[in-house]
Amino acid sequence: MATASPPLKDELDIVIPTIRNLDFLEMWRPFFQPYHLIIVQDGDPSKQIKVPYGFKYDLYNRNDINKLLGPKASCISFKDSACRCFGYMVSKKKYIYTIDDDCFVAKNPSGQDINALEQHIKNLLCPSAPYFFNTLYDPYAEGADFVRGYPFSLREGVPTAVSHGLWLNIPDYDAPTQLVKPSERNTRYVDAVMTIPKSTLFPMCGMNLAFDRDLIGPAMYFGLMGEGQPIGRYDDMWAGWCVKVICDHLGLGVKTGLPYIWHSKASNPFVNLKKEYKGIFWQEEIIPFFQAAVLPKECTTVQACYIELSKQVREKLGKIDPYFTKLADAMVTWIEAWDELNPSK
Amino acid sequence: MATASPPLKDELDIVIPTIRNLDFLEMWRPFFQPYHLIIVQDGDPSKQIKVPYGFKYDLYNRNDINKLLGPKASCISFKDSACRCFGYMVSKKKYIYTIDDDCFVAKNPSGQDINALEQHIKNLLCPSAPYFFNTLYDPYAEGADFVRGYPFSLREGVPTAVSHGLWLNIPDYDAPTQLVKPSERNTRYVDAVMTIPKSTLFPMCGMNLAFDRDLIGPAMYFGLMGEGQPIGRYDDMWAGWCVKVICDHLGLGVKTGLPYIWHSKASNPFVNLKKEYKGIFWQEEIIPFFQAAVLPKECTTVQACYIELSKQVREKLGKIDPYFTKLADAMVTWIEAWDELNPSK
Repeated sequence: MATASPPLKDELDIVIPTIRNLDFLEMWRPFFQPYHLIIVQDGDPSKQIKVPYGFKYDLYNRNDINKLLGPKASCISFKDSACRCFGYMVSKKKYIYTIDDDCFVAKNPSGQDINALEQHIKNLLCPSAPYFFNTLYDPYAEGADFVRGYPFSLREGVPTAVSHGLWLNIPDYDAPTQLVKPSERNTRYVDAVMTIPKSTLFPMCGMNLAFDRDLIGPAMYFGLMGEGQPIGRYDDMWAGWCVKVICDHLGLGVKTGLPYIWHSKASNPFVNLKKEYKGIFWQEEIIPFFQAAVLPKECTTVQACYIELSKQVREKLGKIDPYFTKLADAMVTWIEAWDELNPSK
Repeated sequence: MATASPPLKDELDIVIPTIRNLDFLEMWRPFFQPYHLIIVQDGDPSKQIKVPYGFKYDLYNRNDINKLLGPKASCISFKDSACRCFGYMVSKKKYIYTIDDDCFVAKNPSGQDINALEQHIKNLLCPSAPYFFNTLYDPYAEGADFVRGYPFSLREGVPTAVSHGLWLNIPDYDAPTQLVKPSERNTRYVDAVMTIPKSTLFPMCGMNLAFDRDLIGPAMYFGLMGEGQPIGRYDDMWAGWCVKVICDHLGLGVKTGLPYIWHSKASNPFVNLKKEYKGIFWQEEIIPFFQAAVLPKECTTVQACYIELSKQVREKLGKIDPYFTKLADAMVTWIEAWDELNPSK
């Protein structure tokens, strides 16, 4: 049987932070096997991760990270899935899809398996419309368009840098909400992709996320979490705030909505609370900081934007806690490491 | 059989700009009959509109408008459905639902009739969240909540002023899009309600729209369209831009999404093009004007905001065409007439 080649087969890496069960890759085999995987092992490097037969992959553990980055490895989190961003850095591909190992294939309302990766690729390959809201959602989707009153000059859109997918079953709640609503499940399939408007921040979840590495890669830093750090579960949030501010500045689009994956397992709310509680407090100041952040016109590359943002973090968030000074340092180290591994062509 | 009283039965008026066919009200009878209707006849006052037995209604034609408003009737459009805003002004209720007479009852994916009015009431009675994007859409909906990373201080939300509903079947396209895609139909049922973020403008369509008259009524002016005016089909758009700027300033929410109605008939694209072509050109300047509009802190009522906006329209849009000076005058007249008919309690 002749089959069409999967989209972007040689231009996309799938980055996975540790694989704790074999079912995960078996379930995704029909969709992932054509692609190259980058597995970033988040814990003890002596433990062995088994990858089922037939997958092409590179696996990096802490020893590899230390070897490749030397002292700059300090910017990569240890014993936390935030280490996945190392995979973004070592990839040589234009596109990245990252997914957690407790995310399985979801079904659409007609009962068919959702090819999440294919939908992400669609999202990334068609433009975003961040400057005006389209009430019929994605104007580039089949059977849709811009509605009456949408300025024609804005219909060309802007390049899409990020595609943020959603989750059926276990919703991505914080620990307090998990504790209050332990049995809540997301069963609502919302058949839409939309651009998050310019100047609007959103909580970017790293469970089911794709992005254009060439457009926004150096901003996809998942911060300092895990061992030795005062917070956890804010890695993807941190990346999302930085990414959105930089996308807005550079005129790039961020989409959210389809595709759904099936999030199989709620993480332990008590453990989560311990990881999150400072973040829950700090985010009340961090979000106004990012909402007010302005990048100067001279910042025309992601790297320049990110270094500028690190300065503002140091200056304005450093007052909240010494952690943010350390984080600002790590942001700079991250960019140095990125540029070392990705010398400009 | 005992049935619960319909929600807000005595606090909501349904405003309809002319009724050209009896089927319309017959189809909506199960949902509309408990409510009071305000019918604003848009054309020749000598023509008689038939209202089926059993509905409570007031009908206003041009003669009534002239009688009630005297010289101030000049702010109400003639021979155009924009005249519907007269109904908002004469209503004494807290909530308004307005719908076009070519909009019928739609069915949800399970095949059930959608009670559009009930969903609008739900939307209006629960808060909006305009300051941060919630990726699982309406956080107040059943089975949903705010996701991880959503600041707790913003979860209380703000009062909802507007509920903008959508359309299955004939999408609300402008004339050029209608001409290019004459057979496109909207079949995508998106099961979501969302807040349009602060500082983001949207194309507000008047076909299927509800609002809180106490919160935003005086800004729901549908402008000067129809006979003697250089444009048409921008009545609801104009109202939407003004409303959104004022809601953002006053800290009020605007929602879009559910409920759907079934839009039965596409209007003639050639006629539409004639009405729209100046608007299509002008909106390229109007939208940046509204995006940049800032209201001073002293404007704490809708009326004060609207009068301030009229000044800015006169000053900045008056340069585009004398029409905008006339429109700025009409905006002032509208507020004067509103205050006359609605003396503060």
